[in-house]
Amino acid sequence: MKQKRIEDYGIRIGRMPRGERNKITDVPGVSVGHSTIRDEKHNTGVTVILPTERNIFQEKLVGAAFVHNGFGKTAGTVQVEELGTLETPIALTNTLNVGLVADGIVQYMIDRCAADGVPIASVNPVVGECNDAALNTIADRPVTADHVREAIDSAETDFAEGSVGAGAGTQCYGLKGGIGSASRIIELDGRPYTVGILVQSNYGATNDLTIDGNPVGKKISKWIKEQECDKGSIIVVLATDIPLTARQLKRVIRRCSVGIARVGSYIGHGSGEVFIGFSTANVIGSTQSDIMQISCVREDKLNLLFRAAGEATEEAILNSMVCAEETKALDGRMIRSLKDFLEETE
Amino acid sequence: MKQKRIEDYGIRIGRMPRGERNKITDVPGVSVGHSTIRDEKHNTGVTVILPTERNIFQEKLVGAAFVHNGFGKTAGTVQVEELGTLETPIALTNTLNVGLVADGIVQYMIDRCAADGVPIASVNPVVGECNDAALNTIADRPVTADHVREAIDSAETDFAEGSVGAGAGTQCYGLKGGIGSASRIIELDGRPYTVGILVQSNYGATNDLTIDGNPVGKKISKWIKEQECDKGSIIVVLATDIPLTARQLKRVIRRCSVGIARVGSYIGHGSGEVFIGFSTANVIGSTQSDIMQISCVREDKLNLLFRAAGEATEEAILNSMVCAEETKALDGRMIRSLKDFLEETE
Amino acid sequence: MKQKRIEDYGIRIGRMPRGERNKITDVPGVSVGHSTIRDEKHNTGVTVILPTERNIFQEKLVGAAFVHNGFGKTAGTVQVEELGTLETPIALTNTLNVGLVADGIVQYMIDRCAADGVPIASVNPVVGECNDAALNTIADRPVTADHVREAIDSAETDFAEGSVGAGAGTQCYGLKGGIGSASRIIELDGRPYTVGILVQSNYGATNDLTIDGNPVGKKISKWIKEQECDKGSIIVVLATDIPLTARQLKRVIRRCSVGIARVGSYIGHGSGEVFIGFSTANVIGSTQSDIMQISCVREDKLNLLFRAAGEATEEAILNSMVCAEETKALDGRMIRSLKDFLEETE
Amino acid sequence: MKQKRIEDYGIRIGRMPRGERNKITDVPGVSVGHSTIRDEKHNTGVTVILPTERNIFQEKLVGAAFVHNGFGKTAGTVQVEELGTLETPIALTNTLNVGLVADGIVQYMIDRCAADGVPIASVNPVVGECNDAALNTIADRPVTADHVREAIDSAETDFAEGSVGAGAGTQCYGLKGGIGSASRIIELDGRPYTVGILVQSNYGATNDLTIDGNPVGKKISKWIKEQECDKGSIIVVLATDIPLTARQLKRVIRRCSVGIARVGSYIGHGSGEVFIGFSTANVIGSTQSDIMQISCVREDKLNLLFRAAGEATEEAILNSMVCAEETKALDGRMIRSLKDFLEETE
Repeated sequence: MKQKRIEDYGIRIGRMPRGERNKITDVPGVSVGHSTIRDEKHNTGVTVILPTERNIFQEKLVGAAFVHNGFGKTAGTVQVEELGTLETPIALTNTLNVGLVADGIVQYMIDRCAADGVPIASVNPVVGECNDAALNTIADRPVTADHVREAIDSAETDFAEGSVGAGAGTQCYGLKGGIGSASRIIELDGRPYTVGILVQSNYGATNDLTIDGNPVGKKISKWIKEQECDKGSIIVVLATDIPLTARQLKRVIRRCSVGIARVGSYIGHGSGEVFIGFSTANVIGSTQSDIMQISCVREDKLNLLFRAAGEATEEAILNSMVCAEETKALDGRMIRSLKDFLEETE
Repeated sequence: MKQKRIEDYGIRIGRMPRGERNKITDVPGVSVGHSTIRDEKHNTGVTVILPTERNIFQEKLVGAAFVHNGFGKTAGTVQVEELGTLETPIALTNTLNVGLVADGIVQYMIDRCAADGVPIASVNPVVGECNDAALNTIADRPVTADHVREAIDSAETDFAEGSVGAGAGTQCYGLKGGIGSASRIIELDGRPYTVGILVQSNYGATNDLTIDGNPVGKKISKWIKEQECDKGSIIVVLATDIPLTARQLKRVIRRCSVGIARVGSYIGHGSGEVFIGFSTANVIGSTQSDIMQISCVREDKLNLLFRAAGEATEEAILNSMVCAEETKALDGRMIRSLKDFLEETE
Repeated sequence: MKQKRIEDYGIRIGRMPRGERNKITDVPGVSVGHSTIRDEKHNTGVTVILPTERNIFQEKLVGAAFVHNGFGKTAGTVQVEELGTLETPIALTNTLNVGLVADGIVQYMIDRCAADGVPIASVNPVVGECNDAALNTIADRPVTADHVREAIDSAETDFAEGSVGAGAGTQCYGLKGGIGSASRIIELDGRPYTVGILVQSNYGATNDLTIDGNPVGKKISKWIKEQECDKGSIIVVLATDIPLTARQLKRVIRRCSVGIARVGSYIGHGSGEVFIGFSTANVIGSTQSDIMQISCVREDKLNLLFRAAGEATEEAILNSMVCAEETKALDGRMIRSLKDFLEETE
Repeated sequence: MKQKRIEDYGIRIGRMPRGERNKITDVPGVSVGHSTIRDEKHNTGVTVILPTERNIFQEKLVGAAFVHNGFGKTAGTVQVEELGTLETPIALTNTLNVGLVADGIVQYMIDRCAADGVPIASVNPVVGECNDAALNTIADRPVTADHVREAIDSAETDFAEGSVGAGAGTQCYGLKGGIGSASRIIELDGRPYTVGILVQSNYGATNDLTIDGNPVGKKISKWIKEQECDKGSIIVVLATDIPLTARQLKRVIRRCSVGIARVGSYIGHGSGEVFIGFSTANVIGSTQSDIMQISCVREDKLNLLFRAAGEATEEAILNSMVCAEETKALDGRMIRSLKDFLEETE
């Protein structure tokens, strides 16, 4: 998967080392798949983050959710917050397809558990969303369980960014948004660990767009018909192989807001910013004993994860934009890509 | 609708006056409908609470959600908490049908808005759930958008309680659970207002069952094969015509836990207790002016609503049980009704 | 310390086994001290719960706080919630003395750390409160750092209950309230653990008082001038030696509300109900390595702790009342004790 | 009060219009006072924000608190969150003086209420803090009720910024921090309203310092001995005369984090970031009727307040630094001022 990313334009966000792919899939075991729906009336789809190849319902992972702006329809955060565990892949889609996609995740976990001989009578699907109604006839709710399955089956470590899957129809700062990713490396006790981020970007006023401190939005707002209001959503998924308790993980993911602020947003009223995180380090499965051992990072070392969360979110947003292709909106306007601007002005 | 309720057994919960029907529908404008699925393999369905006859997406109501135990899959609470408004009917169903029922509510609101000429590109369906897997082959997810529509279309003020709709397959303290309701009257500034409760009951250890302070569970645990673990869920919906801010309403609904504790529960680990409330008094619609007026109750008067929430929840749970009919579980066991116990021992 | 407690009246709350003393000090290492101020104008004081004999600032414990009704002035919960640790003893006092008592705890920790050679430049004192203004000229704020020190220095395992320390001036259901305690034993992996509760009780309407399901408040409201409004506070402190994460501990302490509801309260508007918990099992101290190991209970085993929290809170409230001595209020009225009622009616 | 502020260096943050003074006191009725303690061993003090000249205990204001990082000792947020009201001035001080300052606020309110003939038996002091231990022998806790009173009595609209009051001993990005302020004007229904911010700044790694997108910290870290770790706190107080519910106000104040991120922070682990807000528009006092009327802004208009909160926080932080004087630390190092850097490099 060769796509020109923000660092290929000479822009390096932050100061921490990146992972090999500079994607969420640098966290071992994590893969990402898309299913994209694109026709005259629709630009939408589903993106799935698979936290592990193993049966995650049987071997749950530590999970956390943080709602920075709850004007959104994300499903599954209530149980994640209560139990501190994630038990399904995370799916992203459009606002009005949350129900069908949640049902698709349920169907997948039932099938997977049947195949693995794992009993399942209850499962908590986690589904994030952005509203792509400007590019997608959203009331049709075209995403079905089949698309969920296709996204899961196509999951890989070297996944596409930009206008794909759940990012097919999103906008960001008046430009084309989409799916973006980045990662950072942290050394603990002498060995490297990874923090990875994936975003579905769909927010921002053109004039506010800031790239590594540079107020390029002011120029872009003359280049395109600007988006005046800071509205829309962003879903951020954070993965790490660093052992964390759910409380620690929640502290980490709330720092994703730093990255969003750095790209220029004031976290507008409409609509939601939701952050979901998981750690692959502790498997919460069935045990024989009543007391169990878990590992976690020393609290003051969280500083490294906080910085990584902020930096990687900032870079993932820019990757979501620069990897996106210009796309025609339902009203006939062309939604331009940041890459076109960067290339014209290089 | 003539069903024998807990007060017909001479048991009066609390000391506040009841509404005319002693149901959530004593709150003017509120109606409730069911769609029940009952066959060899399934006892499940959907129950819908319609807060108003008007288009609730256009004329939103003040809403609140409180998660007392988040081991559950309730959808829509994130936005309700952020914006303090409810914009759809509230649906209840089984755990694995939340996705399809949420999609059914979305479809209903799209259709309703089309009929009313109201634009809609985003909507937040609120769906509560209990796990009826002992009486229902839950992995089939038999509840569809058609059942949601049927429940909405059949909504009435004089609705059935017990083993109907989303209560068709639930258990409570080892007995048959279901849908139950109650109401209380509060006088403010010389005029009467109403607090109404509807529950979907599916929790409790038999031995703990307490009726108005009376430890009847100890006797019932000899009469039936007792449910030993306090597991399962309860969803509580509170309606009122008293004007409240979202903050006040959240204070009120968290007192629903008092009623649950009084019936004997320790709020077991698995699974969720979620409370959802709305007030019909303030309509949050589109306004011309930037500043708007709302009304709310004086804070110390909330005491009346707190007591009403506790009393009516306690009574609604007992009504859900005493109105339920004994039902055969998937394993062939008969799940008995509290009414049979009360009548045998009268 | 020989005081007649609720079980000495033949009333046994719940079904779990009790610890040896049936007090919070059954949790190994925990001790409790009081300093009582009693004169014509004052009935107040301070009660301190010492979670460990060791330097708790250096060897922090897992801690949690849950605010059930935040109309109160409890100090220190913000940091406890963020970091999941407790780093001072917990002090209880009257509403307007929270500042001076917090300062007293700070002084104690500075002195203790100086003695132990532990650097300290920041510390988070945890102080709970109830309003004893009917029996105490509260605006005088008579509790000083000396009383805090006296309470700490007098801490023991066999501490007094009733009208002592922070309970000297409180009322409960129109009767004298105070400090009360209880404990429950839980077996995990074949060995016994303890859950202990201590309450400072100062709430409740007389008519609502319920003892083990028995509505005795209806009789008491004829025996005394009844307290009509369910107002006032209760602070509940939970200790355990069961290993828990902060998230798990927070799930446990919120079940303390079950005990309060069982004694008849609707959790009135004014004023606060705050629950604070700690586990002595994991010491969070300075470590050399970045990753550390902690132990915690299997999530479904929390059911045992939930029941213990509810039962022991219910019993501790009754002990706080039955151990209290009748006391004259500032207005000259005599605030009677539950024990007098129980003995007159025996 | 003539101090050179960040805009006097040609740096204009954001795009919204400023108030007359560009301070929190542009909100009518708001005044700010300091009491500064400065000697060989101490640089500390207290800063008080008076929201109104009237008796705020009697005529409470809508208030809200948002804990962005709870590693702090701020007092009073629990009740503010529960009741949505503020009933005292807000005081800022050093970490270990929170108790005595809270007691000083209690004393002030008791005296004020005595003078005004207002009964008071319970009051919730709100006190924020930063840890100034590098410049202040913090264990001495030198701030007393007298300093609180002095700060209150000296409150004015044209107050000093920089190294005064609670900002006397704080650091920011390795430079001298302190008290800073800014304001923004918002038009609603054709008339102007104000959002004002005051910060107590004490956080940040030198290398991260960003001024209006410009990474000046990289240069400053060569000019001074850099602060490597992003540690320390910031307290942000937001005032407005726009009518808001407590829920709306909480949405507004959480956007203060945007300003902090823009100045370069990743919101480090240690220590706390706490935001406190109030609106002077609705007075919540005693009323005769049970139902009352309040006004609030239309939800989508919050966007204007969100942007104002972010912009004004960013600018207030820079003002706190540029108005501060270089100050000697306890270890003899000179903590330099941003103004010296800006003037040397101009």
